[in-house]
Amino acid sequence: MVDNTFINSLLSRHRPAISRAISIIEAGGDEANDLLNRTHGETGTAYRIGIAGPPGAGKSSITNKLVKIFRQQNKSVGVIAVDPSSPFSQGAILGDRVRMIDVCDDDGVFIRSMATRGSLGGLSYKTSDAADILDVAGFDYIILETVGIGQSELDIAQAADTTVVVLVPESGDTVQMMKAGLMEIADLFVLNKYDRPESESAFGAIKSMLTNSYRNQDKWTPEVIKSIAIREEGINDIAESIDKHRQFLLADNSLYQKRNERLLNRVMELVKIMIMSELWNEHRTIKLNNAISDVVNEKKLPADLAQDIIESYLQDIRKSKS
Amino acid sequence: MVDNTFINSLLSRHRPAISRAISIIEAGGDEANDLLNRTHGETGTAYRIGIAGPPGAGKSSITNKLVKIFRQQNKSVGVIAVDPSSPFSQGAILGDRVRMIDVCDDDGVFIRSMATRGSLGGLSYKTSDAADILDVAGFDYIILETVGIGQSELDIAQAADTTVVVLVPESGDTVQMMKAGLMEIADLFVLNKYDRPESESAFGAIKSMLTNSYRNQDKWTPEVIKSIAIREEGINDIAESIDKHRQFLLADNSLYQKRNERLLNRVMELVKIMIMSELWNEHRTIKLNNAISDVVNEKKLPADLAQDIIESYLQDIRKSKS
Repeated sequence: MVDNTFINSLLSRHRPAISRAISIIEAGGDEANDLLNRTHGETGTAYRIGIAGPPGAGKSSITNKLVKIFRQQNKSVGVIAVDPSSPFSQGAILGDRVRMIDVCDDDGVFIRSMATRGSLGGLSYKTSDAADILDVAGFDYIILETVGIGQSELDIAQAADTTVVVLVPESGDTVQMMKAGLMEIADLFVLNKYDRPESESAFGAIKSMLTNSYRNQDKWTPEVIKSIAIREEGINDIAESIDKHRQFLLADNSLYQKRNERLLNRVMELVKIMIMSELWNEHRTIKLNNAISDVVNEKKLPADLAQDIIESYLQDIRKSKS
Repeated sequence: MVDNTFINSLLSRHRPAISRAISIIEAGGDEANDLLNRTHGETGTAYRIGIAGPPGAGKSSITNKLVKIFRQQNKSVGVIAVDPSSPFSQGAILGDRVRMIDVCDDDGVFIRSMATRGSLGGLSYKTSDAADILDVAGFDYIILETVGIGQSELDIAQAADTTVVVLVPESGDTVQMMKAGLMEIADLFVLNKYDRPESESAFGAIKSMLTNSYRNQDKWTPEVIKSIAIREEGINDIAESIDKHRQFLLADNSLYQKRNERLLNRVMELVKIMIMSELWNEHRTIKLNNAISDVVNEKKLPADLAQDIIESYLQDIRKSKS
């Protein structure tokens, strides 16, 4: 379905080809699967960095400045801003990208936002697939940044080798941070906007949480980096801490493990999608929609309707030749 | 599996029975399905309110004060604090519940936090199921409050009849709000901590976003309520706006539609869970784990391994008698 010329353009990091490839991933379906199959052999070399944190923490600024640092090191960078949300968000993405315009004229940088809402295959799948595309295109670093709420933080952590959690002193209150559920996905904390009044106590709170949490001594303990991204303060420290984590993962064989786990999830997701798209054919979708009123009116149990539908699927399989 | 005595205790809103039922839902599996099946006929009367918003916005305080108002109206209230996250979060839940202690001695109130992480069936499924349990127990109102990030906001919106999005003036910056992806799930906005300096401009920003967004004239337009929850200011307005939205949904048949949609999702989720738990037996799990290294080492495509596993599942079905 996708032709060789296109694959070759992608491999030679031709910008329109990358764009088109991400759009194919975004749309999903057979063409996306074909593209991923055709390029699977070219993945596995890029380093994947996830940037998560609450809205307003400065994730975009930090991404922007990290891109600059990697470029100064003569490394190429692909950025995917994952937006799990809505029509309302289009403005937000534009807003972010406006701030990023100072790196946009550079061939070693590719920046793209990607909407993943309502995708059949789930978000994590697509975030990881988009990273694969940038990997195929030969970028040294891939930055996956979430611009919304929703499943995306966990997906980004799953798709990334190093996950950076960006916080601001307001979110420094210990209970609130724990609430945010961001603690366990972080390989590295950035306390941004460090010129704010509550910064010292927020820093102390994060540090003491890390000390008190039941971490294995052999495992990586997240560093806490202070930054003021808009003044470019602390960004080198972030880049160094990412590299330190990368060296740790390499020494430890965890990088291979992470890739293993990503591909395991990918296969399980594919199994689910392939079976469900077979099962939910027109016939059974109509059956569901017709029978649901009986469930709503309590004449039938949800589990019994589910069983009916599964039975019809199994009959179809038995009837088909092996 | 669950006995009649237990079901009867649940129906008569016996506190230990409710607790046990929620724990069963939390654990999932056959016992949860049995419980839901046995009680399906008793659902459909409670009104379900979702409370979403960024950490620190004051969701817990607002929930707490709303509970008080509903109690003054002699209505019973069940509260589920949905926590999609981690071991780290246990402290956070405790923190919240401490604040709630002033309503805890009242038989008309039941408050419970529920962890949903890593559940086979997905979060939305369990949030909705837990609400069903409180519905069975005969509570007039059910409040579903998220205490974390992740999928939970969208799940809560899906499980609720009215979704309240709580913001604070700091999150008032228009771009940040859009980013948060909270705009489209809101049936009602609360701008809490309204004594903060940026309140007026935040209020204006939300209002103008609502005006500019392409809403259908026949549809509900979210109200924006100002509140200072810790001083109990604006809470009556919130309760009134929830009621107004409820009347709108009733007039419009949307309440029935929402229940229809929830049950449709439930059936689809059940189909997926039932099939996947059948498919991922020990044999195929081992097969996947053994073959994944070939995928990692690029000797095999993810899609081909998925196909192999599906083929083995289909063979098993064909071999089994119908």
